[in-house]
Amino acid sequence: MTASNDGSGSLPAIHFWFEFASTYSYPASARIAKVAEVAGIEVVWEPFLLGPIFRDQGWNDSPFNLYPRKGAYMWRDMERLCEAHGLPFVRPEKFPMNGLLAARVAVLGKGEGWLPDFVRAVYHANFADGRDIADPDCIGDILAALALPADDLIERAGSDENKKRLREQNARADALGIFGAPTFSVGEELFWGGDRMGDAIAFARGGGAG
Amino acid sequence: MTASNDGSGSLPAIHFWFEFASTYSYPASARIAKVAEVAGIEVVWEPFLLGPIFRDQGWNDSPFNLYPRKGAYMWRDMERLCEAHGLPFVRPEKFPMNGLLAARVAVLGKGEGWLPDFVRAVYHANFADGRDIADPDCIGDILAALALPADDLIERAGSDENKKRLREQNARADALGIFGAPTFSVGEELFWGGDRMGDAIAFARGGGAG
Repeated sequence: MTASNDGSGSLPAIHFWFEFASTYSYPASARIAKVAEVAGIEVVWEPFLLGPIFRDQGWNDSPFNLYPRKGAYMWRDMERLCEAHGLPFVRPEKFPMNGLLAARVAVLGKGEGWLPDFVRAVYHANFADGRDIADPDCIGDILAALALPADDLIERAGSDENKKRLREQNARADALGIFGAPTFSVGEELFWGGDRMGDAIAFARGGGAG
Repeated sequence: MTASNDGSGSLPAIHFWFEFASTYSYPASARIAKVAEVAGIEVVWEPFLLGPIFRDQGWNDSPFNLYPRKGAYMWRDMERLCEAHGLPFVRPEKFPMNGLLAARVAVLGKGEGWLPDFVRAVYHANFADGRDIADPDCIGDILAALALPADDLIERAGSDENKKRLREQNARADALGIFGAPTFSVGEELFWGGDRMGDAIAFARGGGAG
């Protein structure tokens, strides 16, 4: 269930596009592996950054900060959603956190078996423990808890080659027309929002190519 | 099933806040009466205008026009949703339509048995037939097809007293913190988006007061 892959397997696949600063990506990341397993669907975990996409839309901050009503609703909705799914939730003191380092580590982990556990742990650190995920110590602790070589991975995450891989992820998200997170994609078909996970899986099972 | 009410009955109630220009309110309006009936929930139909609320957020147009990626996604999503629910859908040449007259007629119909049928017919005219719902002839045709006194209702819809009722509806939406449509409210609890209809109904059944 923690297996990650590149979408080249024999099962239908959905691509799960997540941004570490995204609140709604937290419950989605906690749920998707089990939901997809039950449905017989592979999940391709796709880290990307929303910042550049938001800037292209003229936003220099999260829309939940720019539009206070949307923000007030989202925080209440997160409480309800996390309660419904049995997930701990504490509103972080700072929002959004800078998820650049975590995204670089996640890109390094693309196709690796540890990626889903790492992603879930980063969201938990941000939205359950209130830790600052921009802090290399926080990311190092998470990697170490997964018995991974934290220092080595963090160093490789910052290499020019790996930075380029993250830019390529973002170019793919851009080409798909992604504008928010979480987004699920099946081929060129997009499903935006955690509550559309089931629709995306149904679409993939209906024969859409991953 | 076409009965409307004011939320003062003995069943738990959800309030269904709709704006006639809102695309996602079309499938929601087509589905809610049946879904609520099966769940044993009353529906209070609540017309309001998004325009003033959008202007307060700094938008002078639909966010689906202001943010083309969101718009492209929404039109594709509407095709899928309407197909899934067996609803005809044709992307209107003009979007958004001006729903002021329809909203005034709907306010006049609050608590009347014909309101749900009128609301569904206006959405159908906009998103299935591509008619201009700002045209009094279109609204008149809809009312006449429901065997209602079209001329009389349209005249009363434009009275100062009725205009004031619509402003009061908007003041209620504003006080609840509503920022989009459709929104379902149960007491002060909001659920934004047609895909949250089930959550709103579950919340109402769980003891939330209407």
